Amino acid sequence: MSDSLEYAKRLIEAESVTPARGAVFDAMEAMLQPLGFTVSRFTRGEGVEGTPEEPVENLFAIREGPAGSKHFAFAGHLDVVPPGDGWTSDAFGPEIRGDLLYGRGAVDMKGAIACMVDAVAAVPQDAGTISFIITGDEEGPALHGTRALIDWMEEAGHRPDLCLVGEPTSVNRLGDMMKIGRRGSLNIWLEVTGSQGHVAYPHLADNPIPRLIAILAELDALVLDEGTDWFQPSNLEITEIDAMNRAHNVIPGKAKARISIRFNDTHSGASLSELVGKVAEKHGGTALPIISGEPFLTPPGMFSDLIAEAVEAETGVRPEASTTGGTSDARFLRSVCPVIEFGLVNATMHKTDEAVALADLDTLSRIYTRIARGALAQ
Amino acid sequence: MSDSLEYAKRLIEAESVTPARGAVFDAMEAMLQPLGFTVSRFTRGEGVEGTPEEPVENLFAIREGPAGSKHFAFAGHLDVVPPGDGWTSDAFGPEIRGDLLYGRGAVDMKGAIACMVDAVAAVPQDAGTISFIITGDEEGPALHGTRALIDWMEEAGHRPDLCLVGEPTSVNRLGDMMKIGRRGSLNIWLEVTGSQGHVAYPHLADNPIPRLIAILAELDALVLDEGTDWFQPSNLEITEIDAMNRAHNVIPGKAKARISIRFNDTHSGASLSELVGKVAEKHGGTALPIISGEPFLTPPGMFSDLIAEAVEAETGVRPEASTTGGTSDARFLRSVCPVIEFGLVNATMHKTDEAVALADLDTLSRIYTRIARGALAQ
Ligand SMILES: [Zn+2]
Ligand SMILES: [Zn+2]
Repeated sequence: MSDSLEYAKRLIEAESVTPARGAVFDAMEAMLQPLGFTVSRFTRGEGVEGTPEEPVENLFAIREGPAGSKHFAFAGHLDVVPPGDGWTSDAFGPEIRGDLLYGRGAVDMKGAIACMVDAVAAVPQDAGTISFIITGDEEGPALHGTRALIDWMEEAGHRPDLCLVGEPTSVNRLGDMMKIGRRGSLNIWLEVTGSQGHVAYPHLADNPIPRLIAILAELDALVLDEGTDWFQPSNLEITEIDAMNRAHNVIPGKAKARISIRFNDTHSGASLSELVGKVAEKHGGTALPIISGEPFLTPPGMFSDLIAEAVEAETGVRPEASTTGGTSDARFLRSVCPVIEFGLVNATMHKTDEAVALADLDTLSRIYTRIARGALAQ
Repeated sequence: MSDSLEYAKRLIEAESVTPARGAVFDAMEAMLQPLGFTVSRFTRGEGVEGTPEEPVENLFAIREGPAGSKHFAFAGHLDVVPPGDGWTSDAFGPEIRGDLLYGRGAVDMKGAIACMVDAVAAVPQDAGTISFIITGDEEGPALHGTRALIDWMEEAGHRPDLCLVGEPTSVNRLGDMMKIGRRGSLNIWLEVTGSQGHVAYPHLADNPIPRLIAILAELDALVLDEGTDWFQPSNLEITEIDAMNRAHNVIPGKAKARISIRFNDTHSGASLSELVGKVAEKHGGTALPIISGEPFLTPPGMFSDLIAEAVEAETGVRPEASTTGGTSDARFLRSVCPVIEFGLVNATMHKTDEAVALADLDTLSRIYTRIARGALAQ
């Protein structure tokens, strides 16, 4: 038996709804120090509780290998989404029932972080440098989390050669999927201003809704691309429309909409913002884009092969190299070094009764050991 | 000097925000009885205060002429819209400043009702039958107002030959416009149901917004008609759109819109409801129509000529025969007899510091006397 179960329990019972600070980082530090890691912790964000600026804790831990050796990094987050109602047992009281360990963060991603810590105990220090890049702000706005860690590492002169993010990428069974990339993500707020008036006197008003509809119809008809070897086609969804008008006899003075685009690496947030802005402008509207992530891709090669072989050796399954799904902190880490995501089965993530199979904790721990050893041997 | 100013003050100081009951009807009854009118009052609506079913008072008063004589009716409402803030003097404390009488209802339409009462004093009883059809529910939902009065009159065997509604139809000066018709009014609630999901997995969701946009684009492009001799073209306005979705990463499960149609007598509420319903259905949506009024038209002829001549004799202005603007209780009275609307200048109706020119009260009183005499002489 590995220590991964024990580590997972300790992390789960340190309640850490995003943004996380304090106890859960104390627990993490207490696990890493005995394994020879130098642990640095810092808090970022000066803001008020409950705002996106709320303070966030981050942790960087490093165990230096011999001079000139490779540097491999594990990355992840200790914050969790709120538990919600309806749990069978306490969301922050880890409990084993049957073959499963229940608790918020069991798969996303305290369970995986527990496996990382356990995994490095089986990697000798002279194999190379290993580090942990751990944030308390991944599930929230991610303003002061991994971005701040990257800045901190750069100032301290720590630059990994390869990085593995422990997000729960497995779908039906442990090992069936890794993420070699993620699509970019962009929200755009559209607005058309007209002139309010009474429906009985439309010539005295200027209804903005028909112009907004023209914008949305044109955007909805766009084919952004046909997909690439590694990415599915980019997709645009209209996620909100609102004219904020409760009065039946009033022509509204303003109409708004919001679109969300998930896009592959044939676009950038800026190129799409410009495209949408031109459509809006053509019909007399405005567009305010907020880019939440650029696409990233670590093309299949040495690193993905190494992970695939490690997974296959422990599970008999060869993971699919995917770029589907939402965004993760890999979108920031890509600026440092090649990054790939691999972790537990995501079926219960963010849900009531989130749980991890006990056997998967052991298996993932061994997979992570193989990946770390392999990455340091490159 | 006529008594119209004194009557107007008494009606204004009896506060009667819609739906009206009590004091303002007591004041009205006290004016009509000395003039030989038999006054009947009744309350309709069993509901709770603050709901559309809230009780409403109505008044029918009649002064019978010789057997076989004509029956002319004045119609109007004693309820007023809420005063709102910012009045120079008390909205329910009638005050003369300069040439104007200020107070809520001064022009819409306690002032006009005061002129009606004053006007009939100058019409001899043997000229014919005169009645007052007065409701306390015109500015509200109008469920228990003029409709109930029409039912009551039918049961009591009172059927006027002609009816004048005293809405403020004049625009720039007293006498420049009467309403010989009004457009119909129809609101339709549109809804498209899809299936909620995450923007990163659009194939697992069904976004209802593009279908709603297709419906709205098709409706917005409709040309309902080109207008008629007496009506402007029917008009469709999209007054609200809403997908009720605050989450940036969620594809909404439902999208709604509301349209408002003002239509002439080439359509009915039912024919337009069917047309819109078919467009909605074609794109997988539903339509819920609520018809607030069918169009009405009293084609130019004897009655409008009589009014025009009365106005011209007192003001030198020949009123335009219009069908523009919102709806009024004339939409109900049309089922009883030919109906035309004529009243004070509407510039301050429903506004702060609503006011009527003192001279207009005298002039309108004389115009109403001429109209009543003329109508009974037909
Ligand atoms: Zn996660
Ligand atoms: Zn009115």
